[in-house]
Amino acid sequence: MSNRFCFPVVALMLGLLACSAQAQVDPLPSWNDAPAKQAIVAFVERVTKQGGQDFVAIPDRIAAFDNDGTLWAEAPVYVQVAFVLDRIKTLLPEHPEWREKPMFKAAIAGDLKPILAGTPRDRLELIAASHAGMTADEFERVVTEWLATAKHARFGRLYTELVYQPMLELLTYLRANGFKTYIVSGGGVEFMRPWAEKVYGIPREQVIGSSIKLRYEVRDGRPVLVRLPAIEFVDDKAEKPVGIQRAIGRRPIAAFGNSDGDYEMLHWTTSGQGPRLGMIVRHTDAAREWAYDRDSTVGRLARALDDAPSRGWIVVDMKRDWKKVFAFDQE
Amino acid sequence: MSNRFCFPVVALMLGLLACSAQAQVDPLPSWNDAPAKQAIVAFVERVTKQGGQDFVAIPDRIAAFDNDGTLWAEAPVYVQVAFVLDRIKTLLPEHPEWREKPMFKAAIAGDLKPILAGTPRDRLELIAASHAGMTADEFERVVTEWLATAKHARFGRLYTELVYQPMLELLTYLRANGFKTYIVSGGGVEFMRPWAEKVYGIPREQVIGSSIKLRYEVRDGRPVLVRLPAIEFVDDKAEKPVGIQRAIGRRPIAAFGNSDGDYEMLHWTTSGQGPRLGMIVRHTDAAREWAYDRDSTVGRLARALDDAPSRGWIVVDMKRDWKKVFAFDQE
Repeated sequence: MSNRFCFPVVALMLGLLACSAQAQVDPLPSWNDAPAKQAIVAFVERVTKQGGQDFVAIPDRIAAFDNDGTLWAEAPVYVQVAFVLDRIKTLLPEHPEWREKPMFKAAIAGDLKPILAGTPRDRLELIAASHAGMTADEFERVVTEWLATAKHARFGRLYTELVYQPMLELLTYLRANGFKTYIVSGGGVEFMRPWAEKVYGIPREQVIGSSIKLRYEVRDGRPVLVRLPAIEFVDDKAEKPVGIQRAIGRRPIAAFGNSDGDYEMLHWTTSGQGPRLGMIVRHTDAAREWAYDRDSTVGRLARALDDAPSRGWIVVDMKRDWKKVFAFDQE
Repeated sequence: MSNRFCFPVVALMLGLLACSAQAQVDPLPSWNDAPAKQAIVAFVERVTKQGGQDFVAIPDRIAAFDNDGTLWAEAPVYVQVAFVLDRIKTLLPEHPEWREKPMFKAAIAGDLKPILAGTPRDRLELIAASHAGMTADEFERVVTEWLATAKHARFGRLYTELVYQPMLELLTYLRANGFKTYIVSGGGVEFMRPWAEKVYGIPREQVIGSSIKLRYEVRDGRPVLVRLPAIEFVDDKAEKPVGIQRAIGRRPIAAFGNSDGDYEMLHWTTSGQGPRLGMIVRHTDAAREWAYDRDSTVGRLARALDDAPSRGWIVVDMKRDWKKVFAFDQE
């Protein structure tokens, strides 16, 4: 065999071997080999080791993920806020009274400051007003159509492309090890369900979020669920463990968040018996994503960051720990 | 080989063959070969037939089961009412004020009439008062301990033995065909979760029910979820589809109930697109269980029975359709 022929064949074989070896040994290729990644792998190995003292049975392998800022980008405004702004502009001709209300005026003007300065409850009132008066099925279509076309101003990409590649790998890795992965988000449950399965591999029934009230009605002989302009549940802060208990009835053994809104979920999760993993995604990468924490209007992170060392929560530093932030980043 | 030796061997072999054949061909051995059973099997075969026009993908194979009177006995009083009576007697020394309240007086006297005549909301207030003021973990222990010892007066058996054998087979059969089985009950969600997995094979996160409010608190540095004496949700009638939407976010393709409290769940389920199965368990067997419908104080069945033919809901007649009601019945 001549060298001319041999070289590409050997290179191809080595390449295939390398790929194959990497696929087997590294379930988290977008994570740098640093303490955060090591902690994840060590935790998963502990709880899945048959006969080990920290073994956790499969039904109890529950992992809870915040969504905004933990699984996808939340800057400069939560995606659902961008949706609300667009939706209110679309519906404005039918609702001239909105022009007189301060929060709506801000929304129409695209002025985010008053909206971001409001509480989650303020924002959800705006959401309820813009999302209600239609059936659950109709709302699903509206969300699906919006996400298929709306683009993020900075990246010029669909919002569903602005999910964190390392976190997608983490979701897959946990599920491959028998975990059931849940979203536990302050975002609206019916805003997340239409795309969570496709984007995250998380089925609808594993999405926990904020909600507005629903009313069952029979219209022309057919039952529908009508979305009412009233807040039912704000799945934030101390309500996150409550939402988890209501939906799952088990305490997670792993929780992932990025803001003080996740503090109680992290505390609830990591104070249970046996091995526990609590992790905070810290936004430290202004070049590839954003850098913010204590003074941010989205994903404010202060108390959870201060208490992370004493509570054993691991802080993921995006810039240091992630080879890629988004799938489209170059390594 | 002598006949003396041959006969038992042949009999054994025939017996084994018969068992093996039956296990393969009949997933519902406690059901008589009548229209109800045939409808179940035909439905499952339709939705699972690869390439068939009625094929339903696995994630959409959701089956919703009422609990009281559909999966286990509810006469002469709902099991949770029996629990409340016992619990109130146990806690009475700490709550002398209960002696002045009509519903509590009735409970203490074991007089069920005023309790059964009340609305589900009345009953849940009694439940809330007797169940609150403890953590979710503590309540779980109380329920588990009670169910391990309390016995049904008529049968002298644990309540968890009073589950319907044909329905257990149906749950197993549906799951073997890719269905996810849910409980959707007016009963308290935290009253059912401690035993639903062991008894029905239904995990905690697939139990939907009524609830009282929870509050997250940190006590001595440890988070707990405290049960408050306030009703959060009554999962009955038109709230059943609402509870399903909140917890699952998908419309079931099959629903099983036994009373007018299941009407809306049956209507919601069976009015969706594609193949649907709605089924009503009718209590017609006073000898093995009970016979009641229109005038009953538990599981009242009138409107759903009247409308069953026009809506295509199948009525299971316990006496006619079930070879056994309970596992301990002789065929």
